[in-house]
Amino acid sequence: MHSEQIALDHGSGGEASAELVEKFFLPILDNPFLRELDDSAVVSLNGEKVAMTTDSYVVDPIFFPGGNIGSLAVHGTVNDLSMQGAQPLYLTLGLILEEGLPFEDLQKVMEGVAQASKESSIKIVAGDTKVVSKGHVDKLFINTAGVGLIPPAINVSAGNARPGDVVLINGNIADHGIAILTQREGLHFQSSIRSDSAPLNGLVSAMLHVCPEVHVLRDPTRGGVATALNEIASRSNVAVQLYEERVPISDPVRSACEMLGLDPLYVANEGKCLTILPRKHGEAVLKAMKHHPYGAGATMIGEVLESPQGRVLLKTQVGGTRILSTLTGAQLPRIC
Amino acid sequence: MHSEQIALDHGSGGEASAELVEKFFLPILDNPFLRELDDSAVVSLNGEKVAMTTDSYVVDPIFFPGGNIGSLAVHGTVNDLSMQGAQPLYLTLGLILEEGLPFEDLQKVMEGVAQASKESSIKIVAGDTKVVSKGHVDKLFINTAGVGLIPPAINVSAGNARPGDVVLINGNIADHGIAILTQREGLHFQSSIRSDSAPLNGLVSAMLHVCPEVHVLRDPTRGGVATALNEIASRSNVAVQLYEERVPISDPVRSACEMLGLDPLYVANEGKCLTILPRKHGEAVLKAMKHHPYGAGATMIGEVLESPQGRVLLKTQVGGTRILSTLTGAQLPRIC
Repeated sequence: MHSEQIALDHGSGGEASAELVEKFFLPILDNPFLRELDDSAVVSLNGEKVAMTTDSYVVDPIFFPGGNIGSLAVHGTVNDLSMQGAQPLYLTLGLILEEGLPFEDLQKVMEGVAQASKESSIKIVAGDTKVVSKGHVDKLFINTAGVGLIPPAINVSAGNARPGDVVLINGNIADHGIAILTQREGLHFQSSIRSDSAPLNGLVSAMLHVCPEVHVLRDPTRGGVATALNEIASRSNVAVQLYEERVPISDPVRSACEMLGLDPLYVANEGKCLTILPRKHGEAVLKAMKHHPYGAGATMIGEVLESPQGRVLLKTQVGGTRILSTLTGAQLPRIC
Repeated sequence: MHSEQIALDHGSGGEASAELVEKFFLPILDNPFLRELDDSAVVSLNGEKVAMTTDSYVVDPIFFPGGNIGSLAVHGTVNDLSMQGAQPLYLTLGLILEEGLPFEDLQKVMEGVAQASKESSIKIVAGDTKVVSKGHVDKLFINTAGVGLIPPAINVSAGNARPGDVVLINGNIADHGIAILTQREGLHFQSSIRSDSAPLNGLVSAMLHVCPEVHVLRDPTRGGVATALNEIASRSNVAVQLYEERVPISDPVRSACEMLGLDPLYVANEGKCLTILPRKHGEAVLKAMKHHPYGAGATMIGEVLESPQGRVLLKTQVGGTRILSTLTGAQLPRIC
């Protein structure tokens, strides 16, 4: 570790996070499950292939356009399971509450939890509540952990991308991060920007129905599309080429990013899925995605090349090519 | 709810916690799993009986005699699974870190996690790390969630106690709560008091091997032995009679409780297990417990009666009987 203390970017989902996991946590906790470095683990329960994952949510503010910390916590864990090709089944919910939190706020958050779990058909089966004295936690943190069943025929992993594959995304990027930031800073742009937070299990299920041979599913959350694609390129020993003009971004989000000096390719999404699959299945899967409410804006944004291995290349609108690196630093803290 | 804000005793594990769960969370999230109100849920995964549980840890201080927040988090989840008769298999680990936390502290905590998971043979399969800015979380909070397999022949539940059953415990009570409190307040008693934090899966496995007909397993954590027995009495519609002079307490803990004005029956344990089973199997199970390192102090402390239903009675050393109620108020905050 370069420093002797934990810094904000150790939680950014970018380079410092990866270093913390690989150089600090893995040597202490080393086992084959953690070494996979996926967002969720695949374990065996008497022969059943089961996905298991956890996430803590510390988003600030806890209410934002398009959701709240409760709906976000459910969506995030549902999506991590979905990215393994698993059918999400059961969820646990751990709450850490600040003394003095208004019940009205907790009510709204729990309604977000209830609605999100209903939409994604995941059952909340166990919970835990801790309360700490005022000033020792900021309002409300949530942990969700989930399990889901992976059908035997499905084998998706960040290490499965192959040259010749295409890269799909199900809609506009950067909505979540910009919605949080504008809410937190009290900024007002020409039109309201809403988080894309959504459960993706239905969409993924429709895609896998059309094409069980999907190679990679990945939700570009902290660190954004650029960081997620770097993880895939590195794990699969391939290059990913992204076409800048094909990456869908709404006008308000593009303007906001320009004003704020943020690259939308590094901004967090909470309802987006990068899908990498053999080119021959691309059209059929895109069609299935477009029939789903969360895939209406689906499009092909890139392809997988043999080299340079481990790199993500951006073909810019003016015809140049530049390397897109992993996020360094904490671009936006407490985004989820 | 009586108040309009969250108070410390909503996290105490006592009466206010139960009210929060039953009157606030259940109506919003209602499903048959949560309605069981056990420490962990029993779910089905393609026909396999699986226990699933979660707990967040906010203990203050994070280092204490007998363990740290890391070992405690693993033990707590291993024990919740064990109390369903499950064999603990897989664990997820969610960390919320305060910016500026020394790596040296994180290292010690993670060594606690690693050692505890090794001893209990549970595998940490997925993790998540969030960092929040200085002052927005107190050092380090941990969430653990776990799954385990329940053998088909085992059926333990807080609702299974029957008149004629006996109540066993595996050793001295109140060690954990008093160890935390003395460490936090900088108190020094005649001899050092250590937390009893320990993984109980090996002990429980040995007990169930001798007697698969065990009715109830419960770890008396927040709220202590008195609160756990009240939950059992209430869920099983029976009375539990406890013999005061049989409840094992070490001399230093007894003295500390007297000085601090605490009733040890309400103080948290993290390595204790209340076991309720048919009287005819009592001796055999006690013998098995005494052969295990975490059951050396095992003893019979009470029995189950038909009435008064839902009540816990304490037969005092002077021959009287008094009702032991559920914990009210937050006797000791941030004990786990």
